[in-house]
Amino acid sequence: MKRRGQGIVTLITDFGPLGEYVGAMKGAILKVNPRCQVVDVTHQTEPQDVLQASFILKNTYPYYPAGTIHVVVVDPGVGSSRRPIILEKEEHIFVGPDNGVFTFVLSGKGKTEGYEITRREFFLAPLSDTFHGRDLFAPVAGYLSLGMEPDQFGPPAGDFLQAQLPRPQVRGKKLVGRILFSDSFGNLITNISRKEYGWLVEGRSMQIKGKGWRIDRLHRTYSQGKPGQPMALFGSAGLLELSINRGNAKRTLGLKPGDLLTVSLL
Amino acid sequence: MKRRGQGIVTLITDFGPLGEYVGAMKGAILKVNPRCQVVDVTHQTEPQDVLQASFILKNTYPYYPAGTIHVVVVDPGVGSSRRPIILEKEEHIFVGPDNGVFTFVLSGKGKTEGYEITRREFFLAPLSDTFHGRDLFAPVAGYLSLGMEPDQFGPPAGDFLQAQLPRPQVRGKKLVGRILFSDSFGNLITNISRKEYGWLVEGRSMQIKGKGWRIDRLHRTYSQGKPGQPMALFGSAGLLELSINRGNAKRTLGLKPGDLLTVSLL
Amino acid sequence: MKRRGQGIVTLITDFGPLGEYVGAMKGAILKVNPRCQVVDVTHQTEPQDVLQASFILKNTYPYYPAGTIHVVVVDPGVGSSRRPIILEKEEHIFVGPDNGVFTFVLSGKGKTEGYEITRREFFLAPLSDTFHGRDLFAPVAGYLSLGMEPDQFGPPAGDFLQAQLPRPQVRGKKLVGRILFSDSFGNLITNISRKEYGWLVEGRSMQIKGKGWRIDRLHRTYSQGKPGQPMALFGSAGLLELSINRGNAKRTLGLKPGDLLTVSLL
Repeated sequence: MKRRGQGIVTLITDFGPLGEYVGAMKGAILKVNPRCQVVDVTHQTEPQDVLQASFILKNTYPYYPAGTIHVVVVDPGVGSSRRPIILEKEEHIFVGPDNGVFTFVLSGKGKTEGYEITRREFFLAPLSDTFHGRDLFAPVAGYLSLGMEPDQFGPPAGDFLQAQLPRPQVRGKKLVGRILFSDSFGNLITNISRKEYGWLVEGRSMQIKGKGWRIDRLHRTYSQGKPGQPMALFGSAGLLELSINRGNAKRTLGLKPGDLLTVSLL
Repeated sequence: MKRRGQGIVTLITDFGPLGEYVGAMKGAILKVNPRCQVVDVTHQTEPQDVLQASFILKNTYPYYPAGTIHVVVVDPGVGSSRRPIILEKEEHIFVGPDNGVFTFVLSGKGKTEGYEITRREFFLAPLSDTFHGRDLFAPVAGYLSLGMEPDQFGPPAGDFLQAQLPRPQVRGKKLVGRILFSDSFGNLITNISRKEYGWLVEGRSMQIKGKGWRIDRLHRTYSQGKPGQPMALFGSAGLLELSINRGNAKRTLGLKPGDLLTVSLL
Repeated sequence: MKRRGQGIVTLITDFGPLGEYVGAMKGAILKVNPRCQVVDVTHQTEPQDVLQASFILKNTYPYYPAGTIHVVVVDPGVGSSRRPIILEKEEHIFVGPDNGVFTFVLSGKGKTEGYEITRREFFLAPLSDTFHGRDLFAPVAGYLSLGMEPDQFGPPAGDFLQAQLPRPQVRGKKLVGRILFSDSFGNLITNISRKEYGWLVEGRSMQIKGKGWRIDRLHRTYSQGKPGQPMALFGSAGLLELSINRGNAKRTLGLKPGDLLTVSLL
C-alpha cells in the first residue's frame, strides 16, 4: 500500500460532546504520531448502537483517501472477551471492537483481511478495563498511521460479528420497511434501498400514509417539496427517507427510529 | 496570491452533530488534498438559516490566515437551480451556494470577485441531488486548497443573492432593534451595532425594560454585572447583547431570536 | 525543550456548539501558525465551571505528546483583573486565565513554572473586553506552538488560584462522597478515588443504596453489570462511578452532579 502513512485517522464514537473521552483518545493517537491528522466524523451515535455506527462508517469511509485509518469505538463490551480487531479492505484500514461496528465493511463487495490485536506492547500501560478507545485502539491507530502493517499487531482472524440488519419485507402489494435513523434536520431514513424500491414499486402508483398525511410520489430534491408537507425521496446514502422541506419530519409526523413504514402499491 | 495552498479549509454547516454528513464531506475534501487541515467552525447553525450562517462567517473569516478556503453549506435549495459559487475577497476564498450565506462578504467593504462553479469534472460522480456539500463543494474546496484558482471552476458571475438583514429602527426617542441570535451561554445578541447605538444614545440616559427588569446603563464586561441581574454590553462581534453574569439571559428573561428590543432615551 | 514546536494546540472551552466563538478562536491560532494542528477536546464544559474544566484537562493532557500547548478558556472573569497566564510542567504548556482551570496541573506532583501574560504586542488589537479566548489566548498559543518560550510573554508569576475540590468524608463507618459529573452515557462520576476507597473499604463488605436499588460489590467493566441494574466501578479516570450496563444511570437513578453518595461498611 504505497499511500499508507499519509496519516489521516477518522473517529466514530458514542462518547458524546461532554467530558474527556474524545480528547484523551485523540491525545493517545497524537502521542504516537504527532503529525497525523485526527478527523472527527461523529461522537454522537446513539449510545451503544453498533448498527448505527456501522452505517455511518459505510457512508463515510469510501469518501476518504486510500490509506486512511478509520477508528470506530462504540464498545459496550469493553473489558469483556470481545476481540479488538483490524480490518483491511480497498486500501482502507479499520480499527475497533469485533461487535458488529464493521458489519457493512464485511458484508459489502470486495475482500477483507482481518487481524486480532493481541500484542500488548502497543497498548498504554496499565490497560484500563473501561476505556480501550484511549488505551488500545488509539495507540494502534497511531502506529498504523505511521505506516505499520496490520499483521504486526496480532494474528490473522476471521468470523467477525455482523449486526442483524432489518430488511424490508414484501407483503402482498406492500413493501414494509423500517425507520433506521433520523438526522439533525429531522429527516427519517428507512432501510429501503433504491434497488429494493425499484424491484417492487418503480413505474407503478404508490402511496405512503400516516395520520393526516399521504405521499403518492417521490421527489428528487428537498426543495421540490411543498413547505410544511411530508415528502419522500432517496437521500444521499441511497435510502428512502421521509422529509419536510423547511420543516422537521420527525417532529411533525411523530415517527421515530424503529417505527414501520409501508409503501403500498395501488 | 502567494499564500494560497497552505491548505486550511473551514466548515460552517447546519448538518448537526448526528450522522454521516460532516464526516463524508470532510472525506471528500481530504481525498483531493490529504495534506490540508479541515477546521470545524460550527455544524449547528439553525437548520436552513442562511442569515445566521452569514453572520458566523462574517465573525470568523477575518481571523484566519490569507489563503484560507471557507466552505459554507447551509443549502435548503440543494439540487434546485441555485448556483454553486466561489467568491474571492481580501485573499480569502469562499465556497458555497448562492443563497445568501455570503451576505456579509458581499456587503462589507472591499472588492469581491465571483465565479459560478460549472465544471463538472471536479464533482463526485454521480452528483447526488441532495448532498452537494459532499459531492460538489467539498472536492472544489480540496482543489482550491491545492492552489487552483477560482476561475478554473467556471465563468465569472455576479448579482449574488444577499439575505435581508433586519435593521434597527429609530422611532421618536426609541431605538428598536431585534434579537438575532442566542449563544450557548444564553446571551441574546441584537442587530444594534456600536455605531448605530452611538449615533442615538451615546452620552444620554437610556433604559431597556422587560417584565420585572430594567437596565439603565451599559457594562463593559460580563463580570461587571451583578450575578443574576440582566445587563447589556457590546459583545465580541460589536453588537449590543443582553446577558446575565453567571446566568442565562435567554432562559431567565424569556426572550428569543426574533423578539424586539427597545432602547428608550429618557 | 527539544520537541517544542511540533505544533499541537488543544482546546477546552465552555463556548458550546453554537455560533462563532470556537471558529474565531481557531482562526486566531492558525493565523499565527497555519501549520499547527488545532485539536478540539471539548467545547461543552458546563458554562463557567472551572472545576470541571480542570478535571477534563487533568484527564487529557498527560495523553498528549510533550510540547503540546493546552488552551483552556472557561473564563467568566474575562475583562476583569484576573491574570492571563502560561504554565509549564512536564514539557506541557498550559495557557488560560488564572481562575482555577489549572487546579490539577498545580496540585499534582512535579514542578510547575508560571508566567503572567503581559506583553500586549502579541494580542489582537483592539483587545476586546469580552473575548480573550480569541484576542489574547489564541495568538499566544499560536506563538508558543511556533517554539517561542513562555517567558517571552511576561514575567514569572506564582500564587495561582486553585478551585476548591470537594473531598470525600469519612463519618463513622461511612465514606461520603459527592457526584462531580455525568458523562454522555449517563454515568455518574464521584470524587472518590481508588486510593481513598482502598483505605477504608477494600476487602470489607460494603453497600451503596438509593431509592429502590442497592449495590453491594464493585464491578471491573460496564459489561459485567446486569442490563438495567445499577452498578459501581472505577472508571477510566480512577474515580468511583455509578453506571447501568446498556442504560443511563443519571436518568434511571434520578441523581445528578452535586448529590451525595454514601458507601457504607457493613
